[in-house]
Amino acid sequence: MRDHGSGLGVLDILPVRAGALDSTAGVALWLRSAGAAERSRQLAAMSKTQLARFVSLLDADAGAGAELLESLDTDLAAKVVRRAEIAAAASMLGRLEYDDAAAILRRLDDAIRTAILNALGTRDAEALRAMLAWPAGSTATHMIPDVFTVQAGQTVTEAGAAVREQCTQVRGKARDEAPIYVVDEQRRLIGVVDFQDLVLAEPTQTIAEFMADGPAWVRPLADAEEAAHALVDHDLPALPVVDDEHRLIGVLTAEAATDILAEEATEDAERQGGSMPLEVPYLRASPWLLWRKRIVWLLVLFVAEAYTGTVLRAFEEELDAVVALAFFIPLLIGTGGNTGTQITTTLVRAMATGQAQLRDLPRILVKEISAGLLVAITMATVGIMRAWTLGVGKEVTITVALTLAAIVLWSSIAASVLPPLLKKFRVDPAVVSAPLISTVVDGTGLILYFLIAHATLPELAGL
Amino acid sequence: MRDHGSGLGVLDILPVRAGALDSTAGVALWLRSAGAAERSRQLAAMSKTQLARFVSLLDADAGAGAELLESLDTDLAAKVVRRAEIAAAASMLGRLEYDDAAAILRRLDDAIRTAILNALGTRDAEALRAMLAWPAGSTATHMIPDVFTVQAGQTVTEAGAAVREQCTQVRGKARDEAPIYVVDEQRRLIGVVDFQDLVLAEPTQTIAEFMADGPAWVRPLADAEEAAHALVDHDLPALPVVDDEHRLIGVLTAEAATDILAEEATEDAERQGGSMPLEVPYLRASPWLLWRKRIVWLLVLFVAEAYTGTVLRAFEEELDAVVALAFFIPLLIGTGGNTGTQITTTLVRAMATGQAQLRDLPRILVKEISAGLLVAITMATVGIMRAWTLGVGKEVTITVALTLAAIVLWSSIAASVLPPLLKKFRVDPAVVSAPLISTVVDGTGLILYFLIAHATLPELAGL
Repeated sequence: MRDHGSGLGVLDILPVRAGALDSTAGVALWLRSAGAAERSRQLAAMSKTQLARFVSLLDADAGAGAELLESLDTDLAAKVVRRAEIAAAASMLGRLEYDDAAAILRRLDDAIRTAILNALGTRDAEALRAMLAWPAGSTATHMIPDVFTVQAGQTVTEAGAAVREQCTQVRGKARDEAPIYVVDEQRRLIGVVDFQDLVLAEPTQTIAEFMADGPAWVRPLADAEEAAHALVDHDLPALPVVDDEHRLIGVLTAEAATDILAEEATEDAERQGGSMPLEVPYLRASPWLLWRKRIVWLLVLFVAEAYTGTVLRAFEEELDAVVALAFFIPLLIGTGGNTGTQITTTLVRAMATGQAQLRDLPRILVKEISAGLLVAITMATVGIMRAWTLGVGKEVTITVALTLAAIVLWSSIAASVLPPLLKKFRVDPAVVSAPLISTVVDGTGLILYFLIAHATLPELAGL
Repeated sequence: MRDHGSGLGVLDILPVRAGALDSTAGVALWLRSAGAAERSRQLAAMSKTQLARFVSLLDADAGAGAELLESLDTDLAAKVVRRAEIAAAASMLGRLEYDDAAAILRRLDDAIRTAILNALGTRDAEALRAMLAWPAGSTATHMIPDVFTVQAGQTVTEAGAAVREQCTQVRGKARDEAPIYVVDEQRRLIGVVDFQDLVLAEPTQTIAEFMADGPAWVRPLADAEEAAHALVDHDLPALPVVDDEHRLIGVLTAEAATDILAEEATEDAERQGGSMPLEVPYLRASPWLLWRKRIVWLLVLFVAEAYTGTVLRAFEEELDAVVALAFFIPLLIGTGGNTGTQITTTLVRAMATGQAQLRDLPRILVKEISAGLLVAITMATVGIMRAWTLGVGKEVTITVALTLAAIVLWSSIAASVLPPLLKKFRVDPAVVSAPLISTVVDGTGLILYFLIAHATLPELAGL
């Protein structure tokens, strides 16, 4: 039985305050009413003392503890497990799906992990040791190892009985989210049926009559993100994982794929903001961690941007001659950066969702140059108005308007080319963050500015 | 039977070139091998002639047409339907789920929509007219109206027979993705069972023995995004939609919720890039559309940034006295913008996924000011090195270092406060885009710069 949120009107969820979490009853009420995000938020807000007290309440009730761990992200779950007694931790983890338990165990120190594995039943410990052996990032680390299987020759009634017999081995998730796979005597994958099919078919039909032959599959060492994209893109309910001899060794469910992709989306968003992915929920990131994740890009961008100082020093005499040129520096490079950011953000998202690819580059360029021309004309027009109101004279006004148009066009081209180009060299296009494209455009935009000024301003003729 | 991607090794998908789509066999092969993203991409790349030819091939095979429409986004599907004959269009739409068909019909002109509805069977036309009556953005527009229902008093065998009887009315999606709801004689929702439960229970058990009582529900007029968040946050397999008298009128599936949230994520990404959401896949956006979606924010940001010109003109004498001050303008405001962008991007994503909320503002501020201090010290240090290499003298070097520290701190505070504050006033925090925070910091950062310069530089003492 899946959790259908019994008793929960989704329009009247009242969060239980963290202060109420000081009794077993309070914890039970909280587990009933707080969603995953709310639980995570409140736990992250707890002091060490509060957390220790809270975990001691869980120690007494492994069922509630397991339910809680299931709904937390892996890092926070590992933090809770670390504060629990070894026996209580083993009891909680023993109730989890193998994939969730293995993910939490991966985050623990060797000593605690070994102690917990030793405290678990032999079957669970063996299954978990097998899960932990797969390399990080592989599809196998996200798969559920136990799934229901039937034989092609069985009738619906026989298959139902076979599935009921496997119930003790197959845990909740495989039961709720995975279909039933049809295998031969060597456990080689030959087909798949849904629980729905078993209910809707006549009891005397054989599985072979209505199973889907040769479903899509994936290898255990395939990249988990690629497998998740394939599953979602082809709208599959699950992807069976098979070994070299096509034997079924587990299943990647649609829910696991959704989790993998949501994490990828958060990491992409953080990269787009010019920061390395935090890898932990925001409220749990310490100032030191924030500094570490951000400072590398800030320094890279600083060094790249420092070039603008060199450009401006090179044009020192021009600035001295017409100081009004300096007034427009932030406006010009700001507009270039904004134009570029709009394009890269849209493009990076389109590439992440598969809506645009490397081979679309010519179409992207034509589209963005056309749109860039329209933007350039608009911005040059408002640029004339702005320069006029600052009272800088006709020549500087013309310089500013021409530079705006040139910077917008140049930025459009750079922003269109950069993400597909990075993809070609197998760099994640999400690193073309808003700050990066702004920085690229800043220095080059200033050069355009002074070249145009030289051509337009009589005062600069001799320089 | 759900589509399990029969015959598809997910590691060896070869895209069929659009040129091969000139025969019914070619179209069938393409439908078999190309995923949703790939189909969408290739269709978007077709010329009008190619698309017309392609649709005429579909006209002959409504099954293939329906399969194609299912996998496309609504806009592109509507474009295909517009080019089809009315009879063929009705035949394709009649094979779709009601929610998908209704979404496509919403995009068509009144005349075509009416013609297609008239060409459909009475039952389908009535169901679709009812779907079209719900307001845009409501949960009801995303629900599947037909679901399997059983009675609490039925045995598993009786319930199985009842479900098999409903098969002709309940279409694919409700069958594949929704559970079976338990209702009373007035069709009021009282419980839920999964297909899994029906297979795993003993045939003589009654539904009441193992159903989940009072599952979470949602009203038809509830905001679709909120309902989708609630479903995903509580990890529910589906949300039944009930009317004022608690009668079951449809179901929001987990898959529909995932689609709603993916669209929201794309719109948020576009807003973060300082653009209005495109609302159509990138490759299909015309240059005019790109211009329209981008120019409003560009102009708003231009006007806001124009203020920097006023600031610089106010400090014209200072710039004239120490022209070296101008060298650092892009570097200083760039660093302020980068710091702010890192913070707002992380915060906006954390707020969108529910990891941070308005009431966390004090914790956010403490965290970001602490991290900001660390960043300020780092940037001031590298600022000294950079100013030194430009050879601008001790006083300007000190001014630059102090300004870098001040701008980083100020930007950290502004970027931490802005997203939660907007949320308070019910504005989507995603509008605090990278360009917006940069613009806010640019003008104010320049004022800080010249104030610090006045306090530090002897040359400016008299100004």
